[in-house]
Amino acid sequence: MFQDPQAEAAVFLANERFYRAFSDGDYSAMSELWAQHVPVTCFHPTAPALIGREAVLQSFRQILRGAPTFALRCEDAVVTLVNDTAILTCYEGAGDEPAHLAATNVFVVEDGKWRMVHHHAGPLSRPLRRAAPPIVH
Amino acid sequence: MFQDPQAEAAVFLANERFYRAFSDGDYSAMSELWAQHVPVTCFHPTAPALIGREAVLQSFRQILRGAPTFALRCEDAVVTLVNDTAILTCYEGAGDEPAHLAATNVFVVEDGKWRMVHHHAGPLSRPLRRAAPPIVH
Repeated sequence: MFQDPQAEAAVFLANERFYRAFSDGDYSAMSELWAQHVPVTCFHPTAPALIGREAVLQSFRQILRGAPTFALRCEDAVVTLVNDTAILTCYEGAGDEPAHLAATNVFVVEDGKWRMVHHHAGPLSRPLRRAAPPIVH
Repeated sequence: MFQDPQAEAAVFLANERFYRAFSDGDYSAMSELWAQHVPVTCFHPTAPALIGREAVLQSFRQILRGAPTFALRCEDAVVTLVNDTAILTCYEGAGDEPAHLAATNVFVVEDGKWRMVHHHAGPLSRPLRRAAPPIVH
């Protein structure tokens, strides 16, 4: 029920698609990623709830309008699988800055694909330092 | 798949149990509410992720230690059902104060009961005013 490396890999890929769509300012990819049948919800940082696909996608249309101003990075992703639902926790950071947001991303299988049904990002009290990259001699 | 009034009512009850256990400082009820088989995760406001039942329950043991200092209120709960998983969004407020936190609570059916597998609470940029109570003449 909880261990399924193939499903986990597919969820991580869907999660990557979310951050890539955000960073690329790609509204079409973002729209494609969100569930079309299951009702969706979203909390942008410190903002009230967005309920339903129209409200959620409209917010992303506004956020992604024009050229992206920064790449949104995801790190330390942990996924929990419960049948056809996946709950993913991670941290988000802008560009090379330390992560400054805690995020919950929930995905479900819809039409054979993992699609996002919920996103909740909120501030961390202090940014998380990234592990130093390995030094190559 | 998404409309099941009986399941929705059961999820709202499980959600109420979370806020009652918190407000009553009832660690035993809190422990009972969290899933025992499905891996659990938790983001307390502005804090890093807690991964696994031991870490999550230890945090609640500390939070609920001693007499509760305030009642945690939940309002505007919206639930999305996906088979045996429920994603609930709501706002949290202390006592009679306006809600100051956005919350995501995820539940799964385990041993025939709705149990919590994920909690994420984060600050709102400004507290939400509560609707004025009806005036009784």
